[in-house]
Amino acid sequence: MSGVAGPVTAVQALGYRGDHHLPLPEMVATEEPLEIRVAGPHQVAVPAVVTMRTPGRDFELAAGFLVTEGLCARDEISAVRYCDQADAEHRFNVVTVSIRRAWDPGSTRRDFMATAACGVCGKATIDAVELACPVVAGSAPVAASLITLLPDRLRAGQRAFNTTGGLHAAGLFDPDGTLVCLREDVGRHNAVDKVIGHTVLEHTVLEHTASHSPMAGSDILMVSGRVSFEIVQKAAMAGIGILAAVSAPSSLAVAAAERLGVAVAGFVRDGRYNVYSHPERLAFDR
Amino acid sequence: MSGVAGPVTAVQALGYRGDHHLPLPEMVATEEPLEIRVAGPHQVAVPAVVTMRTPGRDFELAAGFLVTEGLCARDEISAVRYCDQADAEHRFNVVTVSIRRAWDPGSTRRDFMATAACGVCGKATIDAVELACPVVAGSAPVAASLITLLPDRLRAGQRAFNTTGGLHAAGLFDPDGTLVCLREDVGRHNAVDKVIGHTVLEHTVLEHTASHSPMAGSDILMVSGRVSFEIVQKAAMAGIGILAAVSAPSSLAVAAAERLGVAVAGFVRDGRYNVYSHPERLAFDR
Repeated sequence: MSGVAGPVTAVQALGYRGDHHLPLPEMVATEEPLEIRVAGPHQVAVPAVVTMRTPGRDFELAAGFLVTEGLCARDEISAVRYCDQADAEHRFNVVTVSIRRAWDPGSTRRDFMATAACGVCGKATIDAVELACPVVAGSAPVAASLITLLPDRLRAGQRAFNTTGGLHAAGLFDPDGTLVCLREDVGRHNAVDKVIGHTVLEHTVLEHTASHSPMAGSDILMVSGRVSFEIVQKAAMAGIGILAAVSAPSSLAVAAAERLGVAVAGFVRDGRYNVYSHPERLAFDR
Repeated sequence: MSGVAGPVTAVQALGYRGDHHLPLPEMVATEEPLEIRVAGPHQVAVPAVVTMRTPGRDFELAAGFLVTEGLCARDEISAVRYCDQADAEHRFNVVTVSIRRAWDPGSTRRDFMATAACGVCGKATIDAVELACPVVAGSAPVAASLITLLPDRLRAGQRAFNTTGGLHAAGLFDPDGTLVCLREDVGRHNAVDKVIGHTVLEHTVLEHTASHSPMAGSDILMVSGRVSFEIVQKAAMAGIGILAAVSAPSSLAVAAAERLGVAVAGFVRDGRYNVYSHPERLAFDR
């Protein structure tokens, strides 16, 4: 795995000190492009997207991206590998995902053009996205008090964040509040894709004994920042029923969560939170 | 302008109170799709992109997006208007930009495909983007101490942020530290596009007497969050020489800023900052 950039990069900064600049070695979050290619059986891999990401867990990112964007199903992924044709500098910025069916090279382009050109305006795009996204099934509620414990558990796992202050974190918790997987990235959507991709690869590529079953309505995804429409969509595509965030949701995030069966808890901090949709997924002892 | 959604939306939330949920009216940042269409003389407008944004200053966002993505030059924009064909619910989510030359409907698709398919890997994409982006010209330095004053000046203008806690802010300051334009959005890149679009429209569409000339190396863009590669690219495309941020830059943001002639000051808070590139744009009194 030599050649893979780390999650943080050393840079030479200067610190302002009132009347001069002082040399100051600094660590910043690494940001590099990742090209995700897809190939079906006996097909040449074709590029699907380039995303700017923090290197590391690239296979998870690729698998999670394809699943949460609805480009393939979890069980269609058969293998993920780095490019073996690119030169040494570039090969770890290209990932190829092999799928069990024929891949239509035009599908991501059509997806893009659909986004850009469908119907009378962007609102139709949003409707289309939500219609393509299954509603998360009902499930046993989790303890409301559990939500208030998650920020500390997320932060405890954020080693890289402590170093740079420049990474978003996403953590998947089981219904008992146990951290299943935590990932960090300069892009908040990438952190979510890596977490979801982790569960995808655990079950479909590596064929491990499952440490955690495919996600359910009582699983909890916690993110370090804000909740946009995109994050709600990704959670719903993965079948996650509860989305918790340190900061605020957007209006469209709330509306989409209401339609897609996702409970959104925002401003989870200092032992409190606000819930914006599906509060029945969070319950109190009787 | 009736029918335009506001920057914040009222929602009915529930607040966690230990043993129950308490009804809690809340305001969240509005997020809605905006479809940007482009047309040359005697052409039918075609969609270029859909972006999720906070409604308001949509003309600025559209103009700024096209300029900072290199899709057209500042002086090519002749008019911006809302869609007059969509129904009432949708028309304010569609903006058409008229340009003075023929628009190639394939240009954004090619751009997208170039991103997804060029060269051996994504790194080539970045090189291409940077090559297409002019290096910001040298200019007289601004006072280093000025940078430390900007966060308070930015926050003072962030009225919507104070309401929702869910919006990114971008502010353009002149070399004396006077706030020229402040915009907010759920997307940090949109906030930057709106600020830059403001200066574009001021000069090319409205043909006002200039209150501020097209941007120069001694202009300062301050953002409320982190600095990614994309933000550096947008600043450089606009000719802005100094980029200040409350939080951290990424590794690629620092590398791009170094190559494109942009000074990046991060962690601007509590009277201090760190500068990661082109410190010669910030000077101390002798």
